[in-house]
Amino acid sequence: MLKRTHNCGELRSSNVGEKVRMAGWVHSYRDHGNLVFIDLRDREGLVQLVFDPEQHKEVHAEARKLRCEWVIAAQGEVRRRSEGMDNPKMATGEIEVAIDELEILNTAKTPPFDIDSVNEVNEETRLKYRFFDLRRPAMQEKMRVRHRVAKMVRDYYDDNGFWEIETPMLGKSTPEGARDFLVPSRLYQGSFYALPQSPQLFKQILMVAGSDRYFQIVRCFRDEDPRADRQAEFTQVDVEMSFVDSEDVMSVNEKLVADIFKNVLDVDVSLPIKRMSYKQAIDEYGIDRPDLRFDMRLHEITDIAANVDFKVFTSTVKKGGIVKGLCAPGGGKFSRRDIEKTLTEFVNGYGAKGLAWLKVVAKEDGSGLTVNSSIAKFFSEEQQQEIISRFDANDGDVILMVADKEDVVNKSLAPLRVKLGKELGLCKEGSYEFVWIVDFPLFDWNEDEKRFDSLHHPFTAPVPEDLEKLESDPGNIRSQAYDLVVNGSEVGGGSIRIHNPEVQAKVFDLLNISREQAEERFGFFLKALDYGTPPHGGIAFGLDRLVMLLTGTDNIRDVIAFPKTQRGQCLLTDAPGEVDKAQLDELNLRTQKHLHAVEKKPGQA
Amino acid sequence: MLKRTHNCGELRSSNVGEKVRMAGWVHSYRDHGNLVFIDLRDREGLVQLVFDPEQHKEVHAEARKLRCEWVIAAQGEVRRRSEGMDNPKMATGEIEVAIDELEILNTAKTPPFDIDSVNEVNEETRLKYRFFDLRRPAMQEKMRVRHRVAKMVRDYYDDNGFWEIETPMLGKSTPEGARDFLVPSRLYQGSFYALPQSPQLFKQILMVAGSDRYFQIVRCFRDEDPRADRQAEFTQVDVEMSFVDSEDVMSVNEKLVADIFKNVLDVDVSLPIKRMSYKQAIDEYGIDRPDLRFDMRLHEITDIAANVDFKVFTSTVKKGGIVKGLCAPGGGKFSRRDIEKTLTEFVNGYGAKGLAWLKVVAKEDGSGLTVNSSIAKFFSEEQQQEIISRFDANDGDVILMVADKEDVVNKSLAPLRVKLGKELGLCKEGSYEFVWIVDFPLFDWNEDEKRFDSLHHPFTAPVPEDLEKLESDPGNIRSQAYDLVVNGSEVGGGSIRIHNPEVQAKVFDLLNISREQAEERFGFFLKALDYGTPPHGGIAFGLDRLVMLLTGTDNIRDVIAFPKTQRGQCLLTDAPGEVDKAQLDELNLRTQKHLHAVEKKPGQA
Repeated sequence: MLKRTHNCGELRSSNVGEKVRMAGWVHSYRDHGNLVFIDLRDREGLVQLVFDPEQHKEVHAEARKLRCEWVIAAQGEVRRRSEGMDNPKMATGEIEVAIDELEILNTAKTPPFDIDSVNEVNEETRLKYRFFDLRRPAMQEKMRVRHRVAKMVRDYYDDNGFWEIETPMLGKSTPEGARDFLVPSRLYQGSFYALPQSPQLFKQILMVAGSDRYFQIVRCFRDEDPRADRQAEFTQVDVEMSFVDSEDVMSVNEKLVADIFKNVLDVDVSLPIKRMSYKQAIDEYGIDRPDLRFDMRLHEITDIAANVDFKVFTSTVKKGGIVKGLCAPGGGKFSRRDIEKTLTEFVNGYGAKGLAWLKVVAKEDGSGLTVNSSIAKFFSEEQQQEIISRFDANDGDVILMVADKEDVVNKSLAPLRVKLGKELGLCKEGSYEFVWIVDFPLFDWNEDEKRFDSLHHPFTAPVPEDLEKLESDPGNIRSQAYDLVVNGSEVGGGSIRIHNPEVQAKVFDLLNISREQAEERFGFFLKALDYGTPPHGGIAFGLDRLVMLLTGTDNIRDVIAFPKTQRGQCLLTDAPGEVDKAQLDELNLRTQKHLHAVEKKPGQA
Repeated sequence: MLKRTHNCGELRSSNVGEKVRMAGWVHSYRDHGNLVFIDLRDREGLVQLVFDPEQHKEVHAEARKLRCEWVIAAQGEVRRRSEGMDNPKMATGEIEVAIDELEILNTAKTPPFDIDSVNEVNEETRLKYRFFDLRRPAMQEKMRVRHRVAKMVRDYYDDNGFWEIETPMLGKSTPEGARDFLVPSRLYQGSFYALPQSPQLFKQILMVAGSDRYFQIVRCFRDEDPRADRQAEFTQVDVEMSFVDSEDVMSVNEKLVADIFKNVLDVDVSLPIKRMSYKQAIDEYGIDRPDLRFDMRLHEITDIAANVDFKVFTSTVKKGGIVKGLCAPGGGKFSRRDIEKTLTEFVNGYGAKGLAWLKVVAKEDGSGLTVNSSIAKFFSEEQQQEIISRFDANDGDVILMVADKEDVVNKSLAPLRVKLGKELGLCKEGSYEFVWIVDFPLFDWNEDEKRFDSLHHPFTAPVPEDLEKLESDPGNIRSQAYDLVVNGSEVGGGSIRIHNPEVQAKVFDLLNISREQAEERFGFFLKALDYGTPPHGGIAFGLDRLVMLLTGTDNIRDVIAFPKTQRGQCLLTDAPGEVDKAQLDELNLRTQKHLHAVEKKPGQA
């Protein structure tokens, strides 16, 4: 086999005159009567090969046999392309290689789709032929970025005294959070391992074990119901530190994020990344992962709404609801149908019953602004002006309002804000706005079950000043949790953990987890807490999501070499699949299908 | 919380006079009447703290409350220890810190065992209290080395153009090799994922996909029967390269191994590592992973044995067996009982029926050597001299021989050689002898099933010159496989793979795998092979095993933070465990225990 001296994509004018050898795939083929031109492709790019029958008759004859995606190795001399034949779109576009030796390493069946026009190919075909789909330069680039990001992560933590420590994949099922994937044990029949949803307890135990600074890029598993943007197995950058407070954790980790964005996208992230309280995020953006690429904040007008003549508003306020809205700059151009059908149906999808609107226009006499709406009549002039002023509205804007229970208002206005931000072009393409959300509530009140739920997880520590509220006012305890949000996506989150067994016990009480249940679910962890646990905290980043942001894709499957469909199928290998009955027998396991066979009596249909 | 300025283990005389803050665990406590001395421990080591009531009365009073393994933060001034109080065994032994502020961060229950005397503690207790066991400096050091090795691996491959690409954990079961761990699918009931035994097919598919150079540090799973030196989940350094031959793969990877040994142990590995054919390894060491730290090669004397008067030898040779042995230098000191009981029983354990021995002694008249043995009389003087000469034996040696079928001879002599090498002190402690074993047979003849088995796996490529033997003489085809052996342990192995679909089909035929079976098991892979597969090959290293070698332990559980017992139990978390019936119901799965309950009829006992 001809041994490579160069990758295809790396040849430049500076190589002119050199004898080189490359290997790769035939990307395109042009037979120009006498000369044959081939674009040869490898991971690093394309290079043009020329076969000239005048120079090397037999090699040229061989070259004429080539077809797209055949695998070859070739040797020749680098030369400048002929006058006017440069291809500025190709990194190697100034040169070509005049081939004097060719080795056909493998043939190939006709490609399942055109490698250059993937947008017309359905994703099912791409996943089925993943070995071909991954050859596309755009996919290669995503894999390259993913590798680089993982490498930067590892370099950074290593430089900062973190050790990568592996935690088990075959763990114990703890019926918490999402559904576990189970792995039946053959040696302990009737017992199961569970694949980790995250190494949360193991990383905390490593802190108890004195590991001090731990990280791991680790596979995690959640057997959730199908969702477009989720994968049953996903990859997490998992971090834990001892003797730290939340500022320490945020400060160490935001530097890494800034490094990555600088390195991959040449984006400057100014440090420290701003902190925003959960309360402010909900008040101003309706959501704890605000997209800060544009302003268009929410404003509450419950105080004004209580006194208008508009029954929808007043009755909502009377029932304890709120009225909140946003001012869409330039939204005055929306037609009544745009608002009352398209946008209203949009918020209906999030539970809001309707969308009240006020178009803001300049008064004809030039004396200021007024509103224009079918509901304008329910507002006094003073109220109209108050609203205009609260939203800081201008001529040509539209104010859109929802009146409902607080959570419905926020849950519908937040996505409406993002939708309008994008449609009105407020959202700068290529900009990245980072924010740490802090001061989360420790608990969420679960109205159905009349108990508290953890907003993060039950090991999250309360803010020290709020510890006394564990008895008196648990609903208002803030936690030492922090989420890193970029352009409205949560890319990481974590917290300082409880290191005091008494506080941990009190939190379990509030979550209605009995001592026995706690003991059964994570007794091993509670035991560890008793043997000298340092103050500690950590964070986890979703690597898939981070790489999506960095490569500008909305499709999580594009950043995973061998992803599964929404329903957890691998279209390449056909997993999951049936297994031999012998395998199940060894596990002493029956599926329903086998069960039916077992339960059928002889002679029965 | 007092924020650390230093780790405990890093303070030196050069820090004298500095105000420092450390945090960690109380390693030991000495109350000397007025002064209290504490050795404070963190991941980086120990430092002595001094509490003086004359200086800080309240801090001293606080310090008297401390107990072993309590967690504290402390501030003070570094000073030289008093004259004669230096502790040369401690890296920080020249200094101490006079504490002026103390913060008790957590208390601790009485440790489950003495942190300094772990050899007396049984492993079960260590595993159960792993959070404490890992605090021991010896275990911390193993985790540190493991992290460093993983980091070096990643740096090296990255520097050499390899991309780390993640492959799925939830894959398809292929009933090959070891038993798979299965993961029932909830969305496709009756179907199962399997955890990967290795990413073999995925990494080959990445080569088809043009990834060119891939590596991954990846968890692999084998549901094997309990063995002391195996874990159900283990970690592999997995590598694959395109457009390479076996020399390329060995050369890239041996440089990494040499770097690691230099870096961790300051051992120089001279490159290239020597290559030894499989045949030579079997002939001279009886095994394909020879321990080359000492010589004591095996020698065959079947030719001589055929003509002696000793029936054990002659009848073995007549039946097609062989006679082979080794000369143990200085083994003449073994008593008859040592040989005929201890060593004979040892080889019996490997299937050999007996051990023939000849002690070599100087003739009394000084005219040369002779043998001394109850069987000496069966050998002519000439035969005795031939044997002495073949084994290059000296006065005081003993020649030990086994006569049997070839594989029994090798399987018993190989471990005998290692045993004697160690017992006779031939094996240099701290030396590392590396060898690549190459030119393996492609197939092993399976006498029971009258067919060939793959010696490695069915994707291993034959040596090109031997391709023609696929038809004529498959038993004598050499493969392009290579195993890296260090001190008798295999630390890595790989091969060039078949990239030609026709050769692959022919190999399946010889393995008695029908087209249908091949299609069913790895049809997706065979399909990929058709679409332009480059020549490729790779290797995998056992990371656990490598770290064991580097940290000098024989216990695989010592290099894994949270290992399982031989029977696959995690004594810390108690995995595997029972799961809620609801979880099984969602999977539509029954264990035998549930089955019985289901099958019981109402009213029956």
